[in-house]
Amino acid sequence: QEEEEEEEASLEDPWQDEEYFGSYGMLRLHLEMLSDKSRTEAYRQVILSNSASLRSKVVMDLGCGTGIISLFCAQLAQPSVVYAVEASSMAEYTRQLVKQNECQEVVTVLQGRAEEIELPEQVDVLVSEWMGNCLLFEFMVESVLLARDRWLREGGVMWPSSAAFTLVPCQADRYYAEKMAFWERPYGLDFTPLQPLAKQEFFTKPKFSHLIEPSECLSAPSDVICLDMYTIQVKDLEEIRGQFHFDVEKPGVFHGFTAWFTVYFESLQTGGPTVELNTGPNAEPTHWKQTLFMLDRPVSVYTGDSIRGTIVLRRNPVWRRHMSVTLHWNIDSSSMETSNCKVGTKTFPMWR
Amino acid sequence: QEEEEEEEASLEDPWQDEEYFGSYGMLRLHLEMLSDKSRTEAYRQVILSNSASLRSKVVMDLGCGTGIISLFCAQLAQPSVVYAVEASSMAEYTRQLVKQNECQEVVTVLQGRAEEIELPEQVDVLVSEWMGNCLLFEFMVESVLLARDRWLREGGVMWPSSAAFTLVPCQADRYYAEKMAFWERPYGLDFTPLQPLAKQEFFTKPKFSHLIEPSECLSAPSDVICLDMYTIQVKDLEEIRGQFHFDVEKPGVFHGFTAWFTVYFESLQTGGPTVELNTGPNAEPTHWKQTLFMLDRPVSVYTGDSIRGTIVLRRNPVWRRHMSVTLHWNIDSSSMETSNCKVGTKTFPMWR
Ligand SMILES: [Ca+2]
Ligand SMILES: [Ca+2]
Repeated sequence: QEEEEEEEASLEDPWQDEEYFGSYGMLRLHLEMLSDKSRTEAYRQVILSNSASLRSKVVMDLGCGTGIISLFCAQLAQPSVVYAVEASSMAEYTRQLVKQNECQEVVTVLQGRAEEIELPEQVDVLVSEWMGNCLLFEFMVESVLLARDRWLREGGVMWPSSAAFTLVPCQADRYYAEKMAFWERPYGLDFTPLQPLAKQEFFTKPKFSHLIEPSECLSAPSDVICLDMYTIQVKDLEEIRGQFHFDVEKPGVFHGFTAWFTVYFESLQTGGPTVELNTGPNAEPTHWKQTLFMLDRPVSVYTGDSIRGTIVLRRNPVWRRHMSVTLHWNIDSSSMETSNCKVGTKTFPMWR
Repeated sequence: QEEEEEEEASLEDPWQDEEYFGSYGMLRLHLEMLSDKSRTEAYRQVILSNSASLRSKVVMDLGCGTGIISLFCAQLAQPSVVYAVEASSMAEYTRQLVKQNECQEVVTVLQGRAEEIELPEQVDVLVSEWMGNCLLFEFMVESVLLARDRWLREGGVMWPSSAAFTLVPCQADRYYAEKMAFWERPYGLDFTPLQPLAKQEFFTKPKFSHLIEPSECLSAPSDVICLDMYTIQVKDLEEIRGQFHFDVEKPGVFHGFTAWFTVYFESLQTGGPTVELNTGPNAEPTHWKQTLFMLDRPVSVYTGDSIRGTIVLRRNPVWRRHMSVTLHWNIDSSSMETSNCKVGTKTFPMWR
C-alpha cells in the first residue's frame, strides 16, 4: 500500500528526488545515522588518524547531512577549508550547527545537488557517507563519482577508498518460522492455504534490517564484489557481477543468503593505517544491519557440501535509485542425503 | 514524506477505504494480529467459556479477516451459523480456510462492507475485533455500531460488550534521551539548534507502539473513558470526554501520558465469567502495545503532587478514520520544589 502511494507520488521523476531529498529534510534519518556509533565513530577515526596530514588540505564532504564529518574535520584537524555539500533542506540547519560550534572559519555549507554545485577550487579529499542497503541502494554513489570526476584534483583521496560486498549462505530459522511455518497449525487450525501469499509477500523482496548471528552462517563469508572508488565509472553501476564458492562447514538448513558491506578508508600518508567500517555479523551492528535474501524453499545442507554460483546487481533502467539482485546457486553434495533441489535462481527487486 | 504520499493518494475519499481495505488484503497485518497471542487467545477464551451457550445461536463475525474467530466458533461450539463478514480481498482466502478446516457447514463467508451486506436473519451474537490504537483509531467501531443497529436481535449480545480507555502519567526517559537529549552533546558537539525540529518531529503526534514498564508509571492508572457497546451511538464518537485525577506516588520526571485500552466480553449466561483483554503494562504485551503522548517539556513531580485534568478525543470532521487527542493538565504540588510549569494543554493529531 505504501508502495502504491509512492508510485503515484513519483510518476514523473525516475530519480524520485522530491521523496529522496524530502526524507533527508526530516530529522529522523539523520538521527538514525548519528545514533549509529559504529558508522559515525568510523568517520571520526578517519579524521583523527589523518589529523596531521589534513593540515591545509581542501576537503569536500558530499551529502553532509547535519555536517558531522565536516565538524570532525574542523575540530580534529586543520584543513584550509571544508566544503559541506547538502541538497536537502537540512542544509539551513547545518549552517546553524557550524556557527553554534564555531567552525564557520573552516566549514562552508553549500546547498545544492552534487551535480550542480560550484566550488572555487579542486579538492584534495572527497569524503562522503553514500552507502545504502546492499551498499548501492539509492545510488547516491553516482553523485559521488560525478563529484569525483569534476572536483577531485589529480592524486586526491577518496573516503571511502574502496568497498566490498560480502555474501554468506545462512539459516534464518526465526524469520522462516514467523512468516512461513506459522501458517502450518496456528491455534490448532490449518492455515496452509495462505502460504503462497506469505511467500509472495515476505520472500519476494530482500529483507532489510536483518541481523544475522555468526552462528547462523553456514560457511565462511566471501567478498563477492569489490569497488575501487578511484576507477569505477557511473556506467559500471548498471550491472555488477560477482561469483561465490562456499564450503558448508556444518549441517543445517539453507534458508537464504545474507549480504552486507565493508568500506575502507586509506591513509593520506603512504603506509598509514587503513580505517574500516564493517557492517557484517562479526562487527558491532550498524543502522544498515544486514540484508536477507530468502530462498522460496529451504534446503538441507551438510558439512562438505559446496554452494557455488553468481550474483548480479542490476540497476533499474527506469527507477534510478532502485536495483535488482539476481542469485544463481548450485549445491554440490558429497553425501547422498541432500534433497533434489540442487540448482536455483531467484531475482529480488529492490524495490521495483 | 510517507504522509504526503498518503495525502495525495486519498484526496478524494475521506474514509481512505482503498488504502484501509487494501492494507487488509495483505497478509502482513493479519499475521501481526494472529501472532498476537493475548489478543487471539482472548477471543478463543470467549468462545470456549461460552461454548455451551453458543449452541444453535446465530453469530456474526464482523471484519473477520482470516476468519479465526469464526473458526473458533465452529470448532469449539455448535452455533447454527456464523456469518463471517470481510470487506477486503482477504475474504477469498477466508473461504478457502473455512473449507480447509471443514467448517463450511457452519461458517458462511460474506465479502462486503458492514454497511452493505445482507443477512437472511438477525443475529444473537455480534463479535468483532474492531479495536485500534487508542481504542478508536481507524474508527472501525462505526461499522460495528451500524451492524449492531441493523442485525443484532433485541437482547442479543455484543462481544466486546464494553471498553475502557486508560491513562497514566509516566516517565519516558529512554525515548526522551534518544529523541531530544541526544542533541545536547553528540560526539562532543553542540547540536541543540536541532531540538525545536526534534520536538516538532517526535513529540507532535503520539508515539504508537510504545511499551511502558509498570515502574515508569508515576501513579496508579485510571480509566478515563468507558464505552458501553450496547448504548453508544455513532454520533457519540465525534467527541468523547474524560477526566482524570492522579496522585503522584513517587518522585520522578513527568514526560507524558501513556494510554491503552481494555475490552470486556460478558458471558451469554447471567452470572457467567467475563473475559477481559487488557493491553496495558501489567498484562502481556499485545500488538497494540501502548500509546505515548509526550509533553513538550518534562516536569519534575514529587510524591503527594496531584495531576488533574481532562482528555478529549475528537474525531476528524474530514478524515473519518482519524482523530485528535487533547490533554489538559494541572499539577497541584504539596511541596515548594515543583517547577513553574503547572498547567499545560496539548493537542495530538492522530494522524491529521
Ligand atoms: Ca547512507
Ligand atoms: Ca484492529
